[in-house]
Amino acid sequence: MELVNAEMTAKRAYLDHNASAPLRAGARAAMLEALTAANPSSVHAEGRAARGIVEAARRSVAALVNAKPEHVVFTSGATEAAAMLLSPRWRMGRAPLRMARLYVCEADHPCILGGGAFDAAQVTRIGVDGNGVLDLAMLAAALAAHDRQEGLPLVAIHHANNETGVIQPVEEIGRIARERGAVLMLDAAQSAGRIALDIAAGHADYLILSSHKIGGPKGVGALVAASDLMMPEPLLGGGGQEKGHRAGTENVAGIAGFGAAARAALSELGGIGAVRAMRDRLERDLLAREPHATIFGAATSRLPNTSFFALPGIKAETAQIAFDLAGVALSAGSACSSGKVGPSHVLRAMGFGIDAGALRVSIGPSTSAEEVALFGSALEQILARRGGATKAA
Amino acid sequence: MELVNAEMTAKRAYLDHNASAPLRAGARAAMLEALTAANPSSVHAEGRAARGIVEAARRSVAALVNAKPEHVVFTSGATEAAAMLLSPRWRMGRAPLRMARLYVCEADHPCILGGGAFDAAQVTRIGVDGNGVLDLAMLAAALAAHDRQEGLPLVAIHHANNETGVIQPVEEIGRIARERGAVLMLDAAQSAGRIALDIAAGHADYLILSSHKIGGPKGVGALVAASDLMMPEPLLGGGGQEKGHRAGTENVAGIAGFGAAARAALSELGGIGAVRAMRDRLERDLLAREPHATIFGAATSRLPNTSFFALPGIKAETAQIAFDLAGVALSAGSACSSGKVGPSHVLRAMGFGIDAGALRVSIGPSTSAEEVALFGSALEQILARRGGATKAA
Repeated sequence: MELVNAEMTAKRAYLDHNASAPLRAGARAAMLEALTAANPSSVHAEGRAARGIVEAARRSVAALVNAKPEHVVFTSGATEAAAMLLSPRWRMGRAPLRMARLYVCEADHPCILGGGAFDAAQVTRIGVDGNGVLDLAMLAAALAAHDRQEGLPLVAIHHANNETGVIQPVEEIGRIARERGAVLMLDAAQSAGRIALDIAAGHADYLILSSHKIGGPKGVGALVAASDLMMPEPLLGGGGQEKGHRAGTENVAGIAGFGAAARAALSELGGIGAVRAMRDRLERDLLAREPHATIFGAATSRLPNTSFFALPGIKAETAQIAFDLAGVALSAGSACSSGKVGPSHVLRAMGFGIDAGALRVSIGPSTSAEEVALFGSALEQILARRGGATKAA
Repeated sequence: MELVNAEMTAKRAYLDHNASAPLRAGARAAMLEALTAANPSSVHAEGRAARGIVEAARRSVAALVNAKPEHVVFTSGATEAAAMLLSPRWRMGRAPLRMARLYVCEADHPCILGGGAFDAAQVTRIGVDGNGVLDLAMLAAALAAHDRQEGLPLVAIHHANNETGVIQPVEEIGRIARERGAVLMLDAAQSAGRIALDIAAGHADYLILSSHKIGGPKGVGALVAASDLMMPEPLLGGGGQEKGHRAGTENVAGIAGFGAAARAALSELGGIGAVRAMRDRLERDLLAREPHATIFGAATSRLPNTSFFALPGIKAETAQIAFDLAGVALSAGSACSSGKVGPSHVLRAMGFGIDAGALRVSIGPSTSAEEVALFGSALEQILARRGGATKAA
């Protein structure tokens, strides 16, 4: 039946929202309005209008994570926000402050795992269990061993994993960090807009956000602080933009689109159950067709939109290409290494063999039942070919 | 007559292209097409289409400065490109390479004058003469005194000044740098698209470019290398985007707009004489109305689109507001410090008193004769009020 559907609809299914979510209509409209904006630092009427666009977007992004607008610093993306925060050089007001050591998670995104401006010797990696959940005891022990004479400990952990969708226990992580006097940065690039985020709840000191993961444009992100008492030294110096935290003329249209996407994501958060139901149906369908498929992280808390799985006897890279040819865009691991397809460091950290390739399906509020059906029919074909029934094809 | 025109047209004149040039129609169209693009690092059809957009834009930006496309690294703007280059930490292939000292120009943009990742003690500032032209003898002497045992000398100079439009003698600067074995970076943010640029001519080793100064969107720029034999360590680490030089999902729509703007700017470069003629007419008009006005840098080579001037007896900040109220958007100095209006460091470097405020008019191919006429009529009013004729108003 799905095969018939696929032939009838003859369109593609875009199931790679974690790589980049489709642009929301509201974000597109906000960008179109802002495309002709002037330089927000100009003091003339045109400049003040541009400033108004940027500040309205700042309020929207702040609202998504219940932060104060003045604690939102716009960047060119989550990677730049991570690069800003992952630095030994901070300041408290005007006084210099030193972060002596960085504690990251083995399953973090490469932009965090790389350690930013910290020397490799200053970075401690904390492992995850077979479900991809951070080893809390290891974190507590590492922070207990931290020598505060050298400077503060900085902890940087992803809130939700970009490959598996596994959600980290941020309340516990926040409690451990607080007890040990550590500064905690959460990478919320994948969780924002998919689960509720509240920086005022006190778990994290800083969040990083990515516009294009929530249906805004690519090339925009933010660093959000619970308080700006302590801030990293600017990565980009020059003009006094972003209260001196980030120089460079603001990406006004991108920021406007990010703001609109944040507003839409926040207002639709209540309806995320429909996304979860669709993901769950897709996984039931997957297991019905291939009972031996492994769904990673399924035993723990996951994002409602993500499914990361392995099909026995099929290489993930090969399957990804077959799905693509069948009209289904999905990913074999993450899309952050310019087309490089290799073993997933996330699966390796979870204790799976480095050859265990996996496929990621990630959906969103705009995903249609037809797209999910197209996935099912494509899967059917791929499994059939593996089985030898259509080997000649 | 101009007053009548102004009342008849009743529109505003945007004469602040050096702060941000109006978005070109071609750039807008290219952005609209690219707004729905996927992640260029994704290997599926949607990702490959996005990759195609980015690479086509790379060829267009390369063509603007006669570079090889593979030597263009897209950034979030000229400020980020400057921050990448202004670092002691470079590499030649895989071997680390050290820049020991940075030589900048007193009249450089703040994003260069700040020295990037160099300590203040590692930065030497080279002065300018009364016309704003770099002191070549001082540069040669400073480079002659450079101790190469410590590392290479890095010279960073603006090609054309953002406030005055004064063009630096880049052939001579390039010769001096070459003779002394220095690495030369030219900030071409204001010169690109306004005068011909040819990185293959051998004057500069690196250029930095800004999209929104040539009629592209804000939030995009590039670092362009004459050769990628030596490159700075990445500022943003993580994924392998931009051949490992700059991580983070590419701003696909912004890059598409930048590419289209570069194509248009290159094709219109032959017609830049019309822009010069309009600027010259505006200056003749200015001097006819106020013979004691000072036009800075007028005695030397300047960009065809820029005029930086002082009106005796009128504070620049006050005049800027009056022009704005009269419908004319122009600038008192540069617009890079978030609404901060203060004494121009460029004028101070040129030997003028720090209180000498000045106004900047900067135009482009889209500037109309009506806009220039509106400037004239607004100037007439402002001069008349200063004269006392309309003191009551």
